[in-house]
Amino acid sequence: MIPKDHPRRTSLEIRERLVECFREGIVAEQGLIAHGRGEAFDYLLGERTTDIALNAIKAAVSAMFLATNPVISVNGNAACLCSKDIVELADLTNAKLEVNLFYRSKKRVNAIIDLLRKNNAKKIYGTEPKRHVAIEELSSNRRIVDRDGIYSADLVLVPLEDGDRTEALVKMKKKVITIDLNPLSRTAKSASISIIDNITRAIPLMVKFAREYDGEPIKFDNRANLEESLKIMRGLL
Amino acid sequence: MIPKDHPRRTSLEIRERLVECFREGIVAEQGLIAHGRGEAFDYLLGERTTDIALNAIKAAVSAMFLATNPVISVNGNAACLCSKDIVELADLTNAKLEVNLFYRSKKRVNAIIDLLRKNNAKKIYGTEPKRHVAIEELSSNRRIVDRDGIYSADLVLVPLEDGDRTEALVKMKKKVITIDLNPLSRTAKSASISIIDNITRAIPLMVKFAREYDGEPIKFDNRANLEESLKIMRGLL
Repeated sequence: MIPKDHPRRTSLEIRERLVECFREGIVAEQGLIAHGRGEAFDYLLGERTTDIALNAIKAAVSAMFLATNPVISVNGNAACLCSKDIVELADLTNAKLEVNLFYRSKKRVNAIIDLLRKNNAKKIYGTEPKRHVAIEELSSNRRIVDRDGIYSADLVLVPLEDGDRTEALVKMKKKVITIDLNPLSRTAKSASISIIDNITRAIPLMVKFAREYDGEPIKFDNRANLEESLKIMRGLL
Repeated sequence: MIPKDHPRRTSLEIRERLVECFREGIVAEQGLIAHGRGEAFDYLLGERTTDIALNAIKAAVSAMFLATNPVISVNGNAACLCSKDIVELADLTNAKLEVNLFYRSKKRVNAIIDLLRKNNAKKIYGTEPKRHVAIEELSSNRRIVDRDGIYSADLVLVPLEDGDRTEALVKMKKKVITIDLNPLSRTAKSASISIIDNITRAIPLMVKFAREYDGEPIKFDNRANLEESLKIMRGLL
């Protein structure tokens, strides 16, 4: 339906994929709105992975290898757009996968589990109520985490996050890596490493780098990273 | 559900309203995504009506009064968020209302008509197939317009528009007024008057100004208007 030569073809195809996932119960209505929000920031980035984002990606992968108990938090949008690569990234870095949703329902959790399983995920955390623990600081459904997953992790990768939870996780002394297109968001500002990029580009690049990584330390400064990303956006506006 | 003191309360309430409209069949899935896109630009504006937008609003109302056959094009998002004010603006400026949808279905057209009627709309254009005419330049469903509405209008107010249609309407020598939060969009660039503001603020202000307007001409230059809006966004980034 989207013309082959449409200037924003990729972006429109991603939209269609999200609508498909919404109809399958994977993505929430609010997830569609949140995606649109990200789209606008991506547009300001020129819909490409910047050099500074690539460096953040490398720093993130390196931190995941150094962590003793890394966890990748998966929500509906992330599962919809990147299940295959998320599962591969978890395998490569020995990270756990945990489903953590703002708009949580049994049906949606199951739809996401199915999709991750189809993409070869083995163990998935955050799905068994008897292992649930609540993060005190949070009032949303995102407070519910897995005792053996996010709760006890030393590093959490949270693609497409809400600010409250990132702040709470940082308070719990966890290293937080986020993938967020808005360099001004509370999430981007409070995370340890903020990848200012579209997850559909960032996660495959994380996989690629995780495959190649030789253990060399990566220099990274999140404040400079955010400032540089803002500068790029300002330049394109 | 949204805490009273949440810094982005209004924006979140608008989201909830849109989700409600989606469930009622008024808004399309893609409308939710498009809304999120607008949200990000609004965030860059500081979620307020700028002085330059207020001037565009005044110029738009003045142009509507001067037009001989003005039409307000209504889509799902606009109906959802501003039906009451859209109907009042049409009354005050003697403009026709026409339902024009990208994701057109009989069910959605009817849901929008119902909502407009609930808000005291009398005649609504774009709903009777026998009066439909196609705009040659367009391939999307938006090509279907009412012979006695948009097709014969000399001015069309198109809140939340797609670029293709704006360009086609301009080619048809119509004056186009748009309300679009992205000053870089093809719509904003090709329209005669681009109100760079959130429709939930802009349309009530148009109503207010239409009530007060004394006929004095308003100075307006769309290129300067867009440049100034961009400058404000750059400043906030």
